[in-house]
Amino acid sequence: MGSAAGERAVNVRGAAPKQDRSRATRQRLLESAVTCLAEHGWSGSTVTVVAEHAGVSRGAAQHHFPTREDLFTAAVEYVAEERSRALRAAIDRGPADEAAASPAYTAVRTLVDLYTGTLFRAALHLWVAATNEPQLGPRVAALEARIGRETHRMAVELLGADEREPGVRETVQGLLDMARGLGLANLLTDDSARRERVVAQWARLVEQGLQG
Amino acid sequence: MGSAAGERAVNVRGAAPKQDRSRATRQRLLESAVTCLAEHGWSGSTVTVVAEHAGVSRGAAQHHFPTREDLFTAAVEYVAEERSRALRAAIDRGPADEAAASPAYTAVRTLVDLYTGTLFRAALHLWVAATNEPQLGPRVAALEARIGRETHRMAVELLGADEREPGVRETVQGLLDMARGLGLANLLTDDSARRERVVAQWARLVEQGLQG
Repeated sequence: MGSAAGERAVNVRGAAPKQDRSRATRQRLLESAVTCLAEHGWSGSTVTVVAEHAGVSRGAAQHHFPTREDLFTAAVEYVAEERSRALRAAIDRGPADEAAASPAYTAVRTLVDLYTGTLFRAALHLWVAATNEPQLGPRVAALEARIGRETHRMAVELLGADEREPGVRETVQGLLDMARGLGLANLLTDDSARRERVVAQWARLVEQGLQG
Repeated sequence: MGSAAGERAVNVRGAAPKQDRSRATRQRLLESAVTCLAEHGWSGSTVTVVAEHAGVSRGAAQHHFPTREDLFTAAVEYVAEERSRALRAAIDRGPADEAAASPAYTAVRTLVDLYTGTLFRAALHLWVAATNEPQLGPRVAALEARIGRETHRMAVELLGADEREPGVRETVQGLLDMARGLGLANLLTDDSARRERVVAQWARLVEQGLQG
């Protein structure tokens, strides 16, 4: 009995690193999938390409994600959640010491920045591919809705918006649409100088819109 | 000499229908290319697919457009120009009798509508493909810049905006970014009800922004 308990203890000790390894592999695959999607697009991003990028065998990748669709929708969701967590932590820490910037400017700047990085590029490739791939369409539409709701909640918090006031909800929604459009405008060329001027002006207009 | 002149006359008469036919074929190819791109995406839109859709032989298609890149960049440019012409004619005719709508609302509505049809879908597929296709990238970036400038000019006219006033240029730009973002939001699901509410609110914000 003493020996059996000892064996269990060993198993428990042995199981934890194995689970950790499995989780680390999964995370590497998810992060690699987003990187590959952003860099090579949907048609260039096969499971094999992602597995290679992650330094994982194709079999191990398929153990975690049976289909290509599983891998890429999970990847965009995972990275979006990681980003939400980071942004929420930043919100909880409170505003940084940006002497000159108004709170509305800082909020608009932060939201617009969400749409200019690797995640937006990856998501865009997935959204566009989903328009022509029947097995991808409904899953990506559901994913887009989840990410959209979460981003909207964060925007409301960042802006300190009171959505009970008429027009405020639509002001926030339109701002996120603008941020998405600015992301699109940054796809082929560096649009940062123009974007900066648009952010400065629209921070003022959004501030007015939030007053209901 | 009389006979030679007669021959020339026949040639001239014979040449006109041939040129017309050639131009009609070219137009059919361009319109088919945009339709195919919107429906099947870049990877599903080969020259063969477009030629078939247009009812033209592959050889004839290649006579007009030596490469796939030629065909699709020309197609998006052609359809964008056709749309500009139609919109300019509508602007010249003056506002329709929309009793309840403010001029700003009508202008914002018209601009947003530019980004919800077949042309936007086709252009989006081309833009996204251009991020991964070196032979497409610079051409599409140049095309995007040309279409963007023309759309901005039309927006300024439609809104009656005075860009010498501070902030007005950025108000118009941000509005077009928002319109592009709304187009993206309409890609996988019918977003028209939400879009309508955003347009109503943003028309008010734009009106304030245009006052400088």
